[in-house]
Amino acid sequence: MIEETSKENIEIRVQMASEAYQFLKSTTIKQRAVFMNAVADKIEALGEELLTTAHAETSLPQTRLTGEKARTIGQWRSYAKAVASGIYIEPRIDLPQPEKQKGDLRKYNIGLGSVVVFGASNFPFAFSTAGGDTASAIGAGCPVIVKAHPAHPKTSQMMADAITNAVKEFGWPEGIFSHITGTSYETGVYLAQHKDIHAVAFTGSYSGGKALFDIANRRENPIPVFAEMGSINPVFALQHLMENKAEVLAKEYISSLTLGVGQFCTNPGVFIAVKGPSLDRFISALKNEIHEIIPANMLHNGIYENFAKHTSNAISQPGIEVIATTEAEEGKGNATIIKTNAQSFLNNPVLSEEVFGPFGIIVTCESKEELIQIAQNLKGQLTITVAATSDDVHENAELIHLLKDKCGRLLFNGIPTGVEVVYAMQHGGPFPSTTDSRFTSVGPDAVKRFVRPISFQNWPDEFLPEELKNENPLQISRIVDGEVNVKSLKLETV
Amino acid sequence: MIEETSKENIEIRVQMASEAYQFLKSTTIKQRAVFMNAVADKIEALGEELLTTAHAETSLPQTRLTGEKARTIGQWRSYAKAVASGIYIEPRIDLPQPEKQKGDLRKYNIGLGSVVVFGASNFPFAFSTAGGDTASAIGAGCPVIVKAHPAHPKTSQMMADAITNAVKEFGWPEGIFSHITGTSYETGVYLAQHKDIHAVAFTGSYSGGKALFDIANRRENPIPVFAEMGSINPVFALQHLMENKAEVLAKEYISSLTLGVGQFCTNPGVFIAVKGPSLDRFISALKNEIHEIIPANMLHNGIYENFAKHTSNAISQPGIEVIATTEAEEGKGNATIIKTNAQSFLNNPVLSEEVFGPFGIIVTCESKEELIQIAQNLKGQLTITVAATSDDVHENAELIHLLKDKCGRLLFNGIPTGVEVVYAMQHGGPFPSTTDSRFTSVGPDAVKRFVRPISFQNWPDEFLPEELKNENPLQISRIVDGEVNVKSLKLETV
Repeated sequence: MIEETSKENIEIRVQMASEAYQFLKSTTIKQRAVFMNAVADKIEALGEELLTTAHAETSLPQTRLTGEKARTIGQWRSYAKAVASGIYIEPRIDLPQPEKQKGDLRKYNIGLGSVVVFGASNFPFAFSTAGGDTASAIGAGCPVIVKAHPAHPKTSQMMADAITNAVKEFGWPEGIFSHITGTSYETGVYLAQHKDIHAVAFTGSYSGGKALFDIANRRENPIPVFAEMGSINPVFALQHLMENKAEVLAKEYISSLTLGVGQFCTNPGVFIAVKGPSLDRFISALKNEIHEIIPANMLHNGIYENFAKHTSNAISQPGIEVIATTEAEEGKGNATIIKTNAQSFLNNPVLSEEVFGPFGIIVTCESKEELIQIAQNLKGQLTITVAATSDDVHENAELIHLLKDKCGRLLFNGIPTGVEVVYAMQHGGPFPSTTDSRFTSVGPDAVKRFVRPISFQNWPDEFLPEELKNENPLQISRIVDGEVNVKSLKLETV
Repeated sequence: MIEETSKENIEIRVQMASEAYQFLKSTTIKQRAVFMNAVADKIEALGEELLTTAHAETSLPQTRLTGEKARTIGQWRSYAKAVASGIYIEPRIDLPQPEKQKGDLRKYNIGLGSVVVFGASNFPFAFSTAGGDTASAIGAGCPVIVKAHPAHPKTSQMMADAITNAVKEFGWPEGIFSHITGTSYETGVYLAQHKDIHAVAFTGSYSGGKALFDIANRRENPIPVFAEMGSINPVFALQHLMENKAEVLAKEYISSLTLGVGQFCTNPGVFIAVKGPSLDRFISALKNEIHEIIPANMLHNGIYENFAKHTSNAISQPGIEVIATTEAEEGKGNATIIKTNAQSFLNNPVLSEEVFGPFGIIVTCESKEELIQIAQNLKGQLTITVAATSDDVHENAELIHLLKDKCGRLLFNGIPTGVEVVYAMQHGGPFPSTTDSRFTSVGPDAVKRFVRPISFQNWPDEFLPEELKNENPLQISRIVDGEVNVKSLKLETV
């Protein structure tokens, strides 16, 4: 039984967050980075107990959880380093010039205000309570209120305690981090509507993310929502590659499709190719490879039930042939692969909906033109994979050019699952994969979601934030009169 | 009589824009910069005729129009330089590493797609057809469809022709720029709802901007809207400065309030100070200074009628005293300054609404606490001015810290009108001054509104855009494995 945080306590936490924002607004990027590294240390110190707790709550294997824990600690540390570099405050200084009217202008980014984070069930560490959204919001200078995911309450509490302990050790205002628990839908709505909440971050289903987006936009003062709502991550397999490597590709595809019982936002749910002998070989190989897959428990019963329901609904559509399934007892995620042709796929929106779990559709096309037609009709995706040789790329330039419009990350071969936490990662694509394709929720660039610029005109140096002072005490890169440099400015006092 | 572009022609232009987007997506930042400079040249070549035409349509004086034309040309050139520098494509490269799973990741920003620009009436050059929104969208790699402002149709056509001629000379697809004319509200709605439109930029009234924002968010696939909807730009005048310079401040305030017949988004519509002898001196000085003001025609009759209506409505509110007005014949914008106390101001939302024109409210406070109370209750503003000495800043630290939450640009003395086009400018504040405080519509940073990241995973060098190739042929600054550099990468072919 999960305790429901009372409305009164939620209200207190929102007010504490607003006070903490006033404090955070005065911290420098270096101070926030030191704090973020301390959180990383606290999470590291949770040791084996964190893994045991999470395993019991999520059924995720220890090896996976060990990797995810390291990733989560790495997120705090790499985002801290990026924040300290000054890249996300974008400091710009335009000095007074005789021919200009305005005098001295200096701009940098501050946090938007309190951010509500809705964690995901499928990454109990990396996309949940102390995940990338929380790290990037705090790095931006925003207090965070986490609405804990009810699927892993004890894990969530341990992570919350780690952050809270860091806050205490630093003597920072308690409101910097709050942990709201419960299963009530109303709590999320209340927070997203609250006048003192300034942004929302969400990872989960389309229905959940879109509901928050709508609520936030219908407020008296609308606020930004970054909701990552998953996608079907199509694979376009092209002719030469298929001819050379149909069997290798089948092995790769099925391993990506069933990794983590298919419970990834980047799970490649659709495989599209022109029909012919190589596609037949690919399908035969799938039928063999599926016997290597050992079905496992899904994250929780709700996810399993949804998976079973959506899978059986997809199978029941016209023009569908089931080509391979695992056979597990009731309750485990049975990997299922079906086949249909391009026109059935194009004409039936059910087949373009994400099925969260190990479920794939092979779409057989008559021609390259049908590949393009499918590309044109695709909704926004987190990832698209082009399985191709260099010759294929040359011969399908139009298709590939078009695919850039439909995704945040475009792969040349390989598998889309596995989202590296680096600057060059983009985890965010056109709607409906996310609510705003201009941002990412993975990699240090995730910080950008939660900052806004403020410009100071003609303020004496003593009142400017450290980041914008003449001396450049933080020794950061700034754009001064249009040129990037790390110089101190030698100026007469304004 | 303004010609209404037919629905059929609009549809043709939208399709042409989509085709042009495919072309623009393949251009490099350097190519777009060269094009933008060509547009600047074309505008320059419009010569005196542009000024004469605009003067006839807007009543704006020649000196002002001369300055605005130079500013507009400067926008194209400075945004071109910024685009060419690579700052807005944010190139990031993470090279393969043995211990990482993902291989080679490279990210940069591409244009969102076709952008609809709604120009403003009060800046026929700088915020209209060939204004900052159009320049920044094209710089981002987005085709632009301008919905021309009906208040200056001939000016708009001349500017459109300048851009169109540049497109022709370059042999670029005609759909890069389209000029839609007419007065129908439905045209704007149609464009904002069109599935092939990917972003909206707007400068104008709250009702217009908010309507577009709502339409865009209620689409099947929501799109970003940056609407700059004006604000009341409060001036907080603090004690020591008032004691030293009440008369100077009065002169400065009234000149800013009546500049351009008050028709600026950054017009300082509210002046807030603690009552006492220095505020009395300030008000006496206003009463004298107003006789120096020569009322002039407003931009068009609709604006004049709105100004007259809102002014008389404000005057009719309880607790209002009119302290100074100019006396002009019917049809000119009569400068009007009224006075009220803090509680009347706080309790009557009518007094916090923008009156577009030379209209100001002096709010008299009992104490510093009332200054803070007003600050707390302020809606989002483009600018806030603190009229203060250094001692005032020290003695009012809480107030000033709070004001940062309420605006995009915070001034230490001086006047908010006059928005310099530089990197450090922020022209965008918390709602309702704009729909997204994370962006600006003035300065090269305006480009950021119209780009989104795309990440390329493991693509051979030959298929990468120039901006991300190993050689770094454009010699731009990139983040490579977390460090900023302009190096060429010496790598084995992937």
